[in-house]
Amino acid sequence: MKICVAGLGIIGGSVCMSLKRAGYAVDGYDISQLPPTYALNNGIIDNVASEFHKYDIVFVAMPFKATVDFILNNGFKDGAIVSDICGVKKPIENAVSKSARNFNYVGCHPMAGKEVSGIKNACADLFDGRSMVITSNKDTDPAALDTVRALTKDMGFGYIVECSAETHDRKIAYTSQLAHVVSNAYVKDVDLDDCLGFTGGSFQDMTRIAGVDEAVWATLYLENAENLNEKISSLISSLAEIRDAISSGNEEELKKILARGRVLFDGSKKINGKKDIFVQKLR
Amino acid sequence: MKICVAGLGIIGGSVCMSLKRAGYAVDGYDISQLPPTYALNNGIIDNVASEFHKYDIVFVAMPFKATVDFILNNGFKDGAIVSDICGVKKPIENAVSKSARNFNYVGCHPMAGKEVSGIKNACADLFDGRSMVITSNKDTDPAALDTVRALTKDMGFGYIVECSAETHDRKIAYTSQLAHVVSNAYVKDVDLDDCLGFTGGSFQDMTRIAGVDEAVWATLYLENAENLNEKISSLISSLAEIRDAISSGNEEELKKILARGRVLFDGSKKINGKKDIFVQKLR
Repeated sequence: MKICVAGLGIIGGSVCMSLKRAGYAVDGYDISQLPPTYALNNGIIDNVASEFHKYDIVFVAMPFKATVDFILNNGFKDGAIVSDICGVKKPIENAVSKSARNFNYVGCHPMAGKEVSGIKNACADLFDGRSMVITSNKDTDPAALDTVRALTKDMGFGYIVECSAETHDRKIAYTSQLAHVVSNAYVKDVDLDDCLGFTGGSFQDMTRIAGVDEAVWATLYLENAENLNEKISSLISSLAEIRDAISSGNEEELKKILARGRVLFDGSKKINGKKDIFVQKLR
Repeated sequence: MKICVAGLGIIGGSVCMSLKRAGYAVDGYDISQLPPTYALNNGIIDNVASEFHKYDIVFVAMPFKATVDFILNNGFKDGAIVSDICGVKKPIENAVSKSARNFNYVGCHPMAGKEVSGIKNACADLFDGRSMVITSNKDTDPAALDTVRALTKDMGFGYIVECSAETHDRKIAYTSQLAHVVSNAYVKDVDLDDCLGFTGGSFQDMTRIAGVDEAVWATLYLENAENLNEKISSLISSLAEIRDAISSGNEEELKKILARGRVLFDGSKKINGKKDIFVQKLR
Protein backbone atom coordinates (compact mmCIF):
# COMPACT_ATOMS: atom_id res chain seq x y z
CA MET A 1 0.00 0.00 0.00
CA LYS A 2 1.69 3.21 -1.19
CA ILE A 3 0.86 6.18 1.03
CA CYS A 4 1.40 9.85 0.36
CA VAL A 5 0.83 12.75 2.74
CA ALA A 6 0.34 16.05 0.93
CA GLY A 7 0.88 19.03 3.21
CA LEU A 8 3.65 18.69 5.78
CA GLY A 9 2.61 20.92 8.67
CA ILE A 10 2.17 19.74 12.25
CA ILE A 11 -0.76 17.47 11.36
CA GLY A 12 0.59 16.12 8.06
CA GLY A 13 4.01 15.58 9.63
CA SER A 14 2.44 13.76 12.57
CA VAL A 15 0.40 11.56 10.18
CA CYS A 16 3.70 10.58 8.52
CA MET A 17 5.46 9.94 11.82
CA SER A 18 2.63 7.93 13.38
CA LEU A 19 2.30 5.79 10.23
CA LYS A 20 6.04 5.23 10.02
CA ARG A 21 6.04 4.27 13.71
CA ALA A 22 3.45 1.62 12.74
CA GLY A 23 5.77 0.28 10.03
CA TYR A 24 4.38 1.94 6.89
CA ALA A 25 6.45 3.59 4.19
CA VAL A 26 5.24 7.17 3.66
CA ASP A 27 6.07 9.70 0.98
CA GLY A 28 5.41 13.38 1.47
CA TYR A 29 4.73 16.56 -0.47
CA ASP A 30 4.35 20.21 0.37
CA ILE A 31 3.74 23.34 -1.68
CA SER A 32 6.83 24.82 0.00
CA GLN A 33 10.28 23.27 -0.41
CA LEU A 34 11.52 23.44 3.16
CA PRO A 35 9.09 21.03 4.89
CA PRO A 36 9.80 18.05 2.57
CA THR A 37 13.56 18.64 2.89
CA TYR A 38 13.26 18.79 6.67
CA ALA A 39 11.00 15.71 6.66
CA LEU A 40 13.39 13.75 4.47
CA ASN A 41 16.45 14.73 6.52
CA ASN A 42 14.71 13.76 9.75
CA GLY A 43 13.29 10.44 8.64
CA ILE A 44 9.72 11.70 8.73
CA ILE A 45 9.12 10.65 5.10
CA ASP A 46 10.79 8.08 2.85
CA ASN A 47 10.64 10.08 -0.39
CA VAL A 48 9.46 13.42 -1.64
CA ALA A 49 6.27 12.77 -3.61
CA SER A 50 5.34 14.44 -6.87
CA GLU A 51 3.34 11.98 -9.00
CA PHE A 52 0.21 11.58 -6.96
CA HIS A 53 -1.41 9.06 -9.30
CA LYS A 54 1.10 6.47 -8.04
CA TYR A 55 -0.38 6.22 -4.57
CA ASP A 56 -3.09 4.00 -3.12
CA ILE A 57 -3.80 6.52 -0.39
CA VAL A 58 -3.29 10.27 -0.40
CA PHE A 59 -3.84 12.15 2.86
CA VAL A 60 -4.27 15.84 2.18
CA ALA A 61 -3.25 17.84 5.24
CA MET A 62 -3.55 21.40 4.00
CA PRO A 63 -5.72 24.40 4.87
CA PHE A 64 -9.26 24.32 3.51
CA LYS A 65 -8.86 26.11 0.17
CA ALA A 66 -5.54 24.44 -0.63
CA THR A 67 -7.13 21.06 0.15
CA VAL A 68 -9.99 21.61 -2.29
CA ASP A 69 -7.59 22.90 -4.97
CA PHE A 70 -5.22 19.98 -4.45
CA ILE A 71 -7.95 17.35 -4.71
CA LEU A 72 -9.62 18.92 -7.74
CA ASN A 73 -6.44 19.76 -9.64
CA ASN A 74 -4.51 16.52 -9.34
CA GLY A 75 -5.05 13.13 -10.92
CA PHE A 76 -5.23 10.06 -8.69
CA LYS A 77 -5.06 6.33 -9.35
CA ASP A 78 -8.37 4.62 -10.16
CA GLY A 79 -9.87 3.54 -6.85
CA ALA A 80 -7.28 5.40 -4.78
CA ILE A 81 -8.39 6.68 -1.40
CA VAL A 82 -8.16 10.45 -1.01
CA SER A 83 -8.68 11.73 2.49
CA ASP A 84 -8.41 15.20 4.04
CA ILE A 85 -8.06 16.43 7.60
CA CYS A 86 -9.88 19.76 7.34
CA GLY A 87 -11.85 21.28 10.19
CA VAL A 88 -15.02 21.54 8.07
CA LYS A 89 -16.29 18.56 6.12
CA LYS A 90 -19.51 19.36 4.22
CA PRO A 91 -17.97 22.00 1.92
CA ILE A 92 -15.13 19.57 1.03
CA GLU A 93 -17.58 16.74 0.46
CA ASN A 94 -19.63 19.05 -1.77
CA ALA A 95 -16.63 20.18 -3.77
CA VAL A 96 -15.28 16.67 -4.21
CA SER A 97 -18.57 15.02 -5.08
CA LYS A 98 -19.24 17.62 -7.75
CA SER A 99 -16.14 16.65 -9.65
CA ALA A 100 -16.24 13.62 -11.92
CA ARG A 101 -14.01 11.35 -9.93
CA ASN A 102 -12.25 8.01 -10.18
CA PHE A 103 -11.10 7.93 -6.54
CA ASN A 104 -12.79 7.28 -3.20
CA TYR A 105 -13.09 10.25 -0.87
CA VAL A 106 -13.24 9.72 2.91
CA GLY A 107 -13.33 12.75 5.21
CA CYS A 108 -11.16 12.76 8.34
CA HIS A 109 -10.68 15.18 11.20
CA PRO A 110 -8.14 14.17 13.85
CA MET A 111 -9.08 15.60 17.25
CA ALA A 112 -5.55 16.58 18.11
CA GLY A 113 -3.46 19.62 17.65
CA LYS A 114 -1.34 22.16 19.39
CA GLU A 115 -1.34 25.92 19.53
CA VAL A 116 1.92 25.77 17.55
CA SER A 117 2.31 24.82 13.89
CA GLY A 118 4.84 23.52 11.37
CA ILE A 119 6.53 20.20 10.77
CA LYS A 120 9.11 20.88 13.49
CA ASN A 121 6.29 20.52 16.02
CA ALA A 122 5.02 17.26 14.50
CA CYS A 123 5.39 14.14 16.62
CA ALA A 124 4.68 10.43 16.31
CA ASP A 125 2.42 10.34 19.36
CA LEU A 126 0.26 13.39 18.62
CA PHE A 127 -2.79 11.19 17.99
CA ASP A 128 -2.23 8.60 20.73
CA GLY A 129 -5.47 7.98 22.58
CA ARG A 130 -7.23 10.81 20.72
CA SER A 131 -10.38 10.67 18.68
CA MET A 132 -10.47 10.52 14.86
CA VAL A 133 -13.68 11.72 13.28
CA ILE A 134 -14.39 9.98 9.98
CA THR A 135 -17.20 11.34 7.81
CA SER A 136 -19.03 9.43 5.14
CA ASN A 137 -22.30 9.39 3.24
CA LYS A 138 -24.31 6.86 1.23
CA ASP A 139 -21.86 7.14 -1.68
CA THR A 140 -18.76 6.36 0.40
CA ASP A 141 -16.95 3.18 -0.66
CA PRO A 142 -17.13 0.65 2.25
CA ALA A 143 -13.69 -0.81 1.51
CA ALA A 144 -12.11 2.65 1.46
CA LEU A 145 -13.81 3.39 4.79
CA ASP A 146 -12.41 0.16 6.23
CA THR A 147 -8.89 1.05 5.12
CA VAL A 148 -9.13 4.50 6.71
CA ARG A 149 -10.40 2.89 9.93
CA ALA A 150 -7.43 0.48 9.96
CA LEU A 151 -4.92 3.29 9.36
CA THR A 152 -6.59 5.35 12.08
CA LYS A 153 -6.02 2.54 14.54
CA ASP A 154 -2.41 2.17 13.40
CA MET A 155 -1.78 5.90 13.87
CA GLY A 156 -2.46 5.43 17.59
CA PHE A 157 -5.90 6.98 17.89
CA GLY A 158 -7.97 5.85 20.86
CA TYR A 159 -11.40 6.36 19.30
CA ILE A 160 -13.06 6.40 15.91
CA VAL A 161 -16.09 8.66 15.74
CA GLU A 162 -18.15 8.24 12.57
CA CYS A 163 -20.90 10.53 11.39
CA SER A 164 -22.13 12.54 8.43
CA ALA A 165 -20.28 15.66 7.29
CA GLU A 166 -23.29 17.69 8.46
CA THR A 167 -23.15 16.28 11.99
CA HIS A 168 -19.39 16.81 12.12
CA ASP A 169 -19.73 20.45 11.13
CA ARG A 170 -22.41 21.14 13.74
CA LYS A 171 -20.50 19.42 16.55
CA ILE A 172 -17.18 20.97 15.62
CA ALA A 173 -18.73 24.45 15.51
CA TYR A 174 -19.49 23.90 19.19
CA THR A 175 -16.45 22.03 20.53
CA SER A 176 -13.68 23.69 18.55
CA GLN A 177 -14.64 26.75 16.52
CA LEU A 178 -16.70 28.36 19.29
CA ALA A 179 -13.80 27.77 21.72
CA HIS A 180 -11.42 29.55 19.36
CA VAL A 181 -13.87 32.42 18.94
CA VAL A 182 -14.30 32.77 22.72
CA SER A 183 -10.56 32.71 23.29
CA ASN A 184 -9.99 35.43 20.71
CA ALA A 185 -12.83 37.54 22.12
CA TYR A 186 -11.70 37.02 25.72
CA VAL A 187 -8.41 38.88 25.27
CA LYS A 188 -10.14 42.04 24.01
CA ASP A 189 -10.94 43.41 27.45
CA VAL A 190 -9.37 46.64 28.70
CA ASP A 191 -8.12 44.76 31.76
CA LEU A 192 -5.95 42.34 29.73
CA ASP A 193 -3.07 44.67 30.42
CA ASP A 194 -1.19 43.70 33.57
CA CYS A 195 -3.59 40.87 34.41
CA LEU A 196 -1.22 37.90 34.56
CA GLY A 197 -0.48 38.36 38.26
CA PHE A 198 -4.18 37.83 38.92
CA THR A 199 -4.67 34.39 37.51
CA GLY A 200 -4.25 30.86 38.75
CA GLY A 201 -4.98 28.99 35.54
CA SER A 202 -8.53 29.72 34.42
CA PHE A 203 -7.47 32.76 32.41
CA GLN A 204 -4.74 30.71 30.72
CA ASP A 205 -7.28 28.00 29.84
CA MET A 206 -9.63 30.58 28.33
CA THR A 207 -6.95 32.25 26.24
CA ARG A 208 -4.54 29.45 25.23
CA ILE A 209 -5.81 29.45 21.65
CA ALA A 210 -6.39 33.20 21.30
CA GLY A 211 -3.37 33.59 19.04
CA VAL A 212 -3.99 30.92 16.39
CA ASP A 213 -3.50 31.80 12.71
CA GLU A 214 -6.41 34.03 11.66
CA ALA A 215 -6.04 33.09 7.97
CA VAL A 216 -6.70 29.40 8.69
CA TRP A 217 -9.52 30.01 11.15
CA ALA A 218 -11.34 32.78 9.29
CA THR A 219 -11.79 30.38 6.38
CA LEU A 220 -13.08 27.60 8.63
CA TYR A 221 -15.51 29.99 10.35
CA LEU A 222 -16.87 31.25 7.04
CA GLU A 223 -17.21 27.74 5.61
CA ASN A 224 -19.24 26.78 8.68
CA ALA A 225 -20.88 30.16 9.22
CA GLU A 226 -24.43 29.09 9.94
CA ASN A 227 -23.53 26.43 12.52
CA LEU A 228 -20.93 28.62 14.21
CA ASN A 229 -23.10 31.71 14.45
CA GLU A 230 -25.85 29.61 16.02
CA LYS A 231 -23.34 28.50 18.66
CA ILE A 232 -22.07 32.04 19.28
CA SER A 233 -25.65 33.28 19.70
CA SER A 234 -26.48 30.45 22.07
CA LEU A 235 -23.42 31.27 24.20
CA ILE A 236 -24.28 34.97 24.22
CA SER A 237 -27.78 34.09 25.49
CA SER A 238 -26.35 31.94 28.28
CA LEU A 239 -23.89 34.69 29.26
CA ALA A 240 -26.67 37.28 29.24
CA GLU A 241 -28.83 35.01 31.41
CA ILE A 242 -26.09 34.93 34.07
CA ARG A 243 -25.45 38.67 33.76
CA ASP A 244 -29.14 39.43 34.21
CA ALA A 245 -29.35 37.22 37.30
CA ILE A 246 -26.32 39.04 38.73
CA SER A 247 -27.96 42.40 37.96
CA SER A 248 -31.15 41.36 39.69
CA GLY A 249 -29.18 40.45 42.81
CA ASN A 250 -31.32 37.33 43.23
CA GLU A 251 -28.83 34.86 44.71
CA GLU A 252 -31.18 31.86 44.65
CA GLU A 253 -31.99 32.43 40.97
CA LEU A 254 -28.29 32.87 40.14
CA LYS A 255 -27.40 29.66 42.00
CA LYS A 256 -30.12 27.81 40.09
CA ILE A 257 -28.71 29.00 36.75
CA LEU A 258 -25.15 28.03 37.72
CA ALA A 259 -26.29 24.67 39.11
CA ARG A 260 -27.90 23.86 35.75
CA GLY A 261 -24.46 24.28 34.12
CA ARG A 262 -22.78 22.11 36.75
CA VAL A 263 -25.33 19.31 36.30
CA LEU A 264 -25.10 19.44 32.50
CA PHE A 265 -21.30 19.38 32.69
CA ASP A 266 -21.22 16.46 35.12
CA GLY A 267 -23.50 14.51 32.79
CA SER A 268 -21.33 15.09 29.72
CA LYS A 269 -18.09 13.41 30.74
CA LYS A 270 -18.33 10.20 28.76
CA ILE A 271 -17.64 9.60 25.07
CA ASN A 272 -20.94 8.13 23.95
CA GLY A 273 -22.22 7.12 20.59
CA LYS A 274 -25.89 7.45 19.88
CA LYS A 275 -28.35 8.83 17.37
CA ASP A 276 -26.31 9.85 14.33
CA ILE A 277 -22.86 9.33 15.84
CA PHE A 278 -21.08 6.00 15.96
CA VAL A 279 -18.18 5.65 18.41
CA GLN A 280 -15.66 2.81 18.45
CA LYS A 281 -13.12 2.57 21.26
CA LEU A 282 -9.88 1.24 19.80
CA ARG A 283 -7.76 0.67 22.90
CA MET B 1 4.96 33.77 65.98
CA LYS B 2 1.77 31.82 66.69
CA ILE B 3 -0.20 31.13 63.52
CA CYS B 4 -3.79 29.94 63.15
CA VAL B 5 -5.58 28.99 59.96
CA ALA B 6 -9.37 29.21 60.29
CA GLY B 7 -11.14 27.23 57.58
CA LEU B 8 -9.53 23.96 56.53
CA GLY B 9 -10.57 23.43 52.92
CA ILE B 10 -8.19 23.00 50.03
CA ILE B 11 -6.78 26.52 50.38
CA GLY B 12 -6.66 26.66 54.18
CA GLY B 13 -5.17 23.18 54.30
CA SER B 14 -2.55 24.13 51.74
CA VAL B 15 -1.68 27.29 53.71
CA CYS B 16 -1.06 25.05 56.74
CA MET B 17 1.01 22.54 54.76
CA SER B 18 3.13 25.12 52.96
CA LEU B 19 3.83 26.98 56.20
CA LYS B 20 4.71 23.75 58.04
CA ARG B 21 6.99 22.82 55.14
CA ALA B 22 8.76 26.14 55.80
CA GLY B 23 9.20 25.23 59.49
CA TYR B 24 6.32 27.10 61.14
CA ALA B 25 4.01 25.64 63.77
CA VAL B 26 0.40 26.05 62.63
CA ASP B 27 -2.87 25.51 64.48
CA GLY B 28 -6.13 25.02 62.63
CA TYR B 29 -9.86 25.51 63.03
CA ASP B 30 -12.92 24.69 61.01
CA ILE B 31 -16.65 25.15 61.55
CA SER B 32 -17.03 21.40 60.84
CA GLN B 33 -15.38 18.78 63.01
CA LEU B 34 -14.02 16.44 60.34
CA PRO B 35 -11.42 18.69 58.68
CA PRO B 36 -9.50 19.53 61.90
CA THR B 37 -9.52 15.84 62.90
CA TYR B 38 -8.23 14.87 59.46
CA ALA B 39 -5.65 17.68 59.56
CA LEU B 40 -4.43 16.71 63.02
CA ASN B 41 -4.19 13.01 62.12
CA ASN B 42 -2.26 13.80 58.94
CA GLY B 43 0.21 16.26 60.41
CA ILE B 44 -1.33 19.19 58.55
CA ILE B 45 -1.82 21.16 61.79
CA ASP B 46 -0.13 20.99 65.18
CA ASN B 47 -3.21 21.67 67.30
CA VAL B 48 -6.90 22.34 66.90
CA ALA B 49 -7.40 26.04 67.54
CA SER B 50 -10.29 27.53 69.48
CA GLU B 51 -9.08 30.63 71.32
CA PHE B 52 -8.29 32.96 68.46
CA HIS B 53 -7.07 35.81 70.67
CA LYS B 54 -3.93 33.75 71.38
CA TYR B 55 -2.53 34.06 67.87
CA ASP B 56 -0.24 36.62 66.26
CA ILE B 57 -1.61 35.77 62.83
CA VAL B 58 -4.98 34.38 61.85
CA PHE B 59 -5.50 33.38 58.22
CA VAL B 60 -9.20 33.07 57.49
CA ALA B 61 -9.73 30.66 54.58
CA MET B 62 -13.51 30.47 54.43
CA PRO B 63 -16.17 31.41 51.89
CA PHE B 64 -17.04 35.10 51.71
CA LYS B 65 -19.91 35.38 54.19
CA ALA B 66 -18.30 33.00 56.68
CA THR B 67 -15.10 35.04 56.47
CA VAL B 68 -16.86 38.30 57.29
CA ASP B 69 -18.78 36.65 60.14
CA PHE B 70 -15.64 35.04 61.54
CA ILE B 71 -13.65 38.27 61.51
CA LEU B 72 -16.44 40.38 63.00
CA ASN B 73 -17.58 37.88 65.63
CA ASN B 74 -14.28 36.80 67.15
CA GLY B 75 -11.83 38.64 69.35
CA PHE B 76 -8.19 38.87 68.33
CA LYS B 77 -5.03 39.85 70.15
CA ASP B 78 -4.13 43.56 70.11
CA GLY B 79 -2.04 44.13 66.99
CA ALA B 80 -2.65 40.64 65.62
CA ILE B 81 -2.66 40.25 61.86
CA VAL B 82 -5.93 38.99 60.43
CA SER B 83 -5.81 38.03 56.79
CA ASP B 84 -8.36 36.44 54.47
CA ILE B 85 -8.08 34.67 51.14
CA CYS B 86 -11.45 35.59 49.59
CA GLY B 87 -11.97 36.12 45.89
CA VAL B 88 -13.39 39.62 46.41
CA LYS B 89 -11.54 42.15 48.54
CA LYS B 90 -13.38 45.48 48.67
CA PRO B 91 -16.51 44.15 50.44
CA ILE B 92 -14.30 42.45 53.07
CA GLU B 93 -12.22 45.59 53.51
CA ASN B 94 -15.41 47.61 53.91
CA ALA B 95 -16.88 45.19 56.47
CA VAL B 96 -13.68 44.98 58.47
CA SER B 97 -12.90 48.68 58.45
CA LYS B 98 -16.39 49.50 59.71
CA SER B 99 -15.84 47.49 62.86
CA ALA B 100 -13.95 49.08 65.71
CA ARG B 101 -10.83 46.95 65.61
CA ASN B 102 -7.69 46.27 67.55
CA PHE B 103 -6.08 44.08 64.89
CA ASN B 104 -4.39 44.69 61.53
CA TYR B 105 -6.25 43.49 58.46
CA VAL B 106 -4.33 42.56 55.30
CA GLY B 107 -6.23 41.16 52.31
CA CYS B 108 -4.80 38.18 50.46
CA HIS B 109 -5.86 36.23 47.40
CA PRO B 110 -3.64 33.31 46.41
CA MET B 111 -3.75 32.73 42.65
CA ALA B 112 -3.92 28.98 42.96
CA GLY B 113 -6.65 26.46 43.20
CA LYS B 114 -8.07 23.35 41.71
CA GLU B 115 -11.46 22.37 40.38
CA VAL B 116 -11.72 20.07 43.41
CA SER B 117 -12.20 21.09 47.04
CA GLY B 118 -11.69 19.92 50.60
CA ILE B 119 -8.68 19.37 52.84
CA LYS B 120 -7.98 15.98 51.25
CA ASN B 121 -6.99 17.84 48.08
CA ALA B 122 -4.73 20.28 49.95
CA CYS B 123 -1.01 20.03 49.26
CA ALA B 124 2.19 21.70 50.43
CA ASP B 125 3.18 22.82 46.92
CA LEU B 126 -0.14 24.30 45.76
CA PHE B 127 1.31 27.82 45.85
CA ASP B 128 4.78 27.07 44.49
CA GLY B 129 5.69 29.60 41.84
CA ARG B 130 2.19 31.09 41.87
CA SER B 131 1.18 34.66 42.46
CA MET B 132 -0.17 36.01 45.78
CA VAL B 133 -2.24 39.15 45.52
CA ILE B 134 -2.00 41.30 48.66
CA THR B 135 -4.39 44.21 49.01
CA SER B 136 -3.88 47.22 51.20
CA ASN B 137 -4.94 50.83 51.62
CA LYS B 138 -3.64 53.93 53.36
CA ASP B 139 -4.72 52.56 56.76
CA THR B 140 -2.87 49.24 56.41
CA ASP B 141 -0.15 48.71 59.01
CA PRO B 142 3.26 48.58 57.22
CA ALA B 143 4.71 46.03 59.67
CA ALA B 144 1.69 43.74 59.21
CA LEU B 145 2.10 44.05 55.45
CA ASP B 146 5.79 43.12 55.76
CA THR B 147 4.94 40.03 57.82
CA VAL B 148 2.37 38.87 55.26
CA ARG B 149 4.93 39.41 52.48
CA ALA B 150 7.50 37.28 54.35
CA LEU B 151 4.99 34.48 54.97
CA THR B 152 3.94 34.62 51.31
CA LYS B 153 7.53 34.01 50.29
CA ASP B 154 7.85 31.17 52.81
CA MET B 155 4.68 29.51 51.45
CA GLY B 156 6.46 29.06 48.12
CA PHE B 157 4.76 31.74 46.05
CA GLY B 158 6.70 32.97 43.02
CA TYR B 159 5.24 36.48 42.90
CA ILE B 160 3.72 39.06 45.17
CA VAL B 161 1.23 41.32 43.43
CA GLU B 162 0.18 44.33 45.51
CA CYS B 163 -2.69 46.65 44.73
CA SER B 164 -5.82 48.23 46.19
CA ALA B 165 -8.89 46.13 46.90
CA GLU B 166 -10.65 48.00 44.07
CA THR B 167 -7.99 47.11 41.53
CA HIS B 168 -8.00 43.50 42.70
CA ASP B 169 -11.76 43.21 42.28
CA ARG B 170 -11.69 44.67 38.77
CA LYS B 171 -8.82 42.46 37.61
CA ILE B 172 -10.21 39.32 39.21
CA ALA B 173 -13.63 39.92 37.61
CA TYR B 174 -11.80 39.58 34.31
CA THR B 175 -9.23 36.84 34.93
CA SER B 176 -11.19 34.52 37.18
CA GLN B 177 -14.89 35.29 37.60
CA LEU B 178 -15.53 35.89 33.89
CA ALA B 179 -13.72 32.62 33.08
CA HIS B 180 -16.00 30.76 35.49
CA VAL B 181 -19.08 32.43 34.00
CA VAL B 182 -17.99 31.54 30.45
CA SER B 183 -17.29 27.94 31.40
CA ASN B 184 -20.72 27.57 33.00
CA ALA B 185 -22.44 29.20 30.01
CA TYR B 186 -20.44 27.17 27.50
CA VAL B 187 -21.95 23.84 28.56
CA LYS B 188 -25.52 25.05 27.99
CA ASP B 189 -25.54 24.34 24.26
CA VAL B 190 -27.84 21.70 22.74
CA ASP B 191 -24.79 20.06 21.17
CA LEU B 192 -23.12 19.33 24.54
CA ASP B 193 -24.67 15.88 24.31
CA ASP B 194 -22.35 13.41 22.59
CA CYS B 195 -19.71 16.03 21.85
CA LEU B 196 -16.65 14.54 23.57
CA GLY B 197 -15.59 12.59 20.50
CA PHE B 198 -15.27 15.90 18.68
CA THR B 199 -12.71 17.62 20.82
CA GLY B 200 -8.96 17.74 21.01
CA GLY B 201 -8.54 19.87 24.10
CA SER B 202 -10.05 23.29 23.47
CA PHE B 203 -13.49 22.21 24.67
CA GLN B 204 -11.95 20.75 27.83
CA ASP B 205 -10.08 24.02 28.47
CA MET B 206 -13.29 26.01 28.06
CA THR B 207 -15.32 23.82 30.39
CA ARG B 208 -12.86 22.63 33.06
CA ILE B 209 -14.39 24.92 35.69
CA ALA B 210 -18.02 24.62 34.57
CA GLY B 211 -18.91 22.48 37.58
CA VAL B 212 -17.56 24.55 40.48
CA ASP B 213 -19.70 25.05 43.58
CA GLU B 214 -22.48 27.50 42.67
CA ALA B 215 -23.01 28.56 46.30
CA VAL B 216 -19.43 29.86 46.59
CA TRP B 217 -19.36 31.50 43.18
CA ALA B 218 -22.83 33.08 43.21
CA THR B 219 -21.79 35.02 46.33
CA LEU B 220 -18.52 36.15 44.76
CA TYR B 221 -20.32 37.25 41.58
CA LEU B 222 -22.91 39.24 43.52
CA GLU B 223 -20.28 40.87 45.75
CA ASN B 224 -18.45 41.99 42.61
CA ALA B 225 -21.52 42.48 40.44
CA GLU B 226 -20.67 45.77 38.79
CA ASN B 227 -17.14 44.78 37.72
CA LEU B 228 -18.19 41.33 36.58
CA ASN B 229 -21.19 42.49 34.56
CA GLU B 230 -18.97 45.02 32.81
CA LYS B 231 -16.66 42.15 31.83
CA ILE B 232 -19.51 39.92 30.66
CA SER B 233 -20.90 42.76 28.55
CA SER B 234 -17.49 43.47 27.05
CA LEU B 235 -17.07 39.80 26.12
CA ILE B 236 -20.56 39.66 24.60
CA SER B 237 -19.65 42.69 22.44
CA SER B 238 -16.45 41.02 21.26
CA LEU B 239 -18.31 37.79 20.48
CA ALA B 240 -21.01 39.69 18.59
CA GLU B 241 -18.34 41.55 16.61
CA ILE B 242 -16.93 38.22 15.38
CA ARG B 243 -20.41 36.81 14.71
CA ASP B 244 -21.34 39.87 12.66
CA ALA B 245 -18.17 39.62 10.59
CA ILE B 246 -18.93 35.95 9.94
CA SER B 247 -22.49 36.85 8.91
CA SER B 248 -21.22 39.49 6.52
CA GLY B 249 -18.95 36.91 4.87
CA ASN B 250 -16.18 39.52 4.68
CA GLU B 251 -13.05 37.39 5.13
CA GLU B 252 -10.61 40.31 5.23
CA GLU B 253 -12.64 42.04 7.93
CA LEU B 254 -12.94 38.81 9.93
CA LYS B 255 -9.20 38.20 9.68
CA LYS B 256 -8.54 41.75 10.87
CA ILE B 257 -10.76 41.23 13.93
CA LEU B 258 -9.11 37.90 14.77
CA ALA B 259 -5.61 39.33 14.19
CA ARG B 260 -6.35 42.05 16.75
CA GLY B 261 -6.97 39.31 19.33
CA ARG B 262 -3.78 37.48 18.39
CA VAL B 263 -1.68 40.64 18.68
CA LEU B 264 -3.23 41.59 22.04
CA PHE B 265 -2.67 38.08 23.35
CA ASP B 266 0.96 37.96 22.18
CA GLY B 267 1.58 41.25 23.95
CA SER B 268 0.11 40.09 27.26
CA LYS B 269 2.40 37.22 28.17
CA LYS B 270 4.55 38.86 30.81
CA ILE B 271 3.78 39.56 34.46
CA ASN B 272 4.35 43.29 34.61
CA GLY B 273 3.85 45.77 37.35
CA LYS B 274 2.84 49.28 36.43
CA LYS B 275 0.32 51.98 37.20
CA ASP B 276 -1.57 50.84 40.28
CA ILE B 277 -0.12 47.32 40.50
CA PHE B 278 3.20 46.48 42.13
CA VAL B 279 4.78 43.13 41.26
CA GLN B 280 7.68 41.51 43.10
CA LYS B 281 9.29 38.35 41.73
CA LEU B 282 10.30 36.20 44.68
CA ARG B 283 12.27 33.41 43.00
